[in-house]
Amino acid sequence: MTEDQFGIREGEVVLELPKAFDAGVYYIGRIHTPWASRDECPKNARESAAVCTVEVDARYALALQNVQTCSHLLLLYWMDKARRDLAVQAPRHYSEPRGTFALRSPVRPNPIAASVVRLIRVEGARLSVVGLDCLDGTPLIDIKPYFASTDAVPDATVGWHGDAQR
Amino acid sequence: MTEDQFGIREGEVVLELPKAFDAGVYYIGRIHTPWASRDECPKNARESAAVCTVEVDARYALALQNVQTCSHLLLLYWMDKARRDLAVQAPRHYSEPRGTFALRSPVRPNPIAASVVRLIRVEGARLSVVGLDCLDGTPLIDIKPYFASTDAVPDATVGWHGDAQR
Repeated sequence: MTEDQFGIREGEVVLELPKAFDAGVYYIGRIHTPWASRDECPKNARESAAVCTVEVDARYALALQNVQTCSHLLLLYWMDKARRDLAVQAPRHYSEPRGTFALRSPVRPNPIAASVVRLIRVEGARLSVVGLDCLDGTPLIDIKPYFASTDAVPDATVGWHGDAQR
Repeated sequence: MTEDQFGIREGEVVLELPKAFDAGVYYIGRIHTPWASRDECPKNARESAAVCTVEVDARYALALQNVQTCSHLLLLYWMDKARRDLAVQAPRHYSEPRGTFALRSPVRPNPIAASVVRLIRVEGARLSVVGLDCLDGTPLIDIKPYFASTDAVPDATVGWHGDAQR
């Protein structure tokens, strides 16, 4: 798909972001992955069995108590390389433009990703996990225990999405 | 459990937050629920079948294209009433203190909640959903399609958590 001089592809729609932020985020650590550029990243996390490392800043180390008892975690991280102003977008591997909130693209008003990972081990303030597809060095903003009772909906469907496409 | 003059319960540990934020968040809408105070909120979302309303700001309306084809969504919202500086905490309904990152408590360095909701309908920039447990007026920060293929892990476990407790 062709891009114009601003990197906007056909069918994409830019929105005007507010003049000021409403709240502030602390980076609480960094994620280390094998992928140094966007092109190297797996198209989605299921395609990779790579063990990635989450380094939590020392000031938050105590907050990791009991995390080692979780089989899976929900990680929130900040996709700091992504633009934030597209309402409709056409990711490279999809055929047509769709609304930002119907996509998991990094491009969104708040470039926060939510990924379910399998926890391999905890050593001090470092977690080894499987299930990420982000760039090396991505800032971490939260770690949550994954509760199957509320977080797992195996029969959920995304109508616009043909499984063959993903 | 008793609280000291700063609202800290026995066994809780305060951490020193950084002096400055690393990134900024836009509120993209508001969530309307039946619950005006923390005490009224369901202890967790499974306990409620209440239909809640998500009002997305007009500037982001186009970004909702194709969302109506999703059976479930992952909503991220900002728990703006919560303190952010506890490393170890003792939520009222649990027996002992645990690390913040092993809990889904609103109290965390970045007070972002992630909730899976069932989408009932979309009317303009307003979504009706089931599965929330937050305060009325809570700021919304993201809407994502829920993909069972990557987001659903039905056999995930949280070791510290006895199901009877939740």
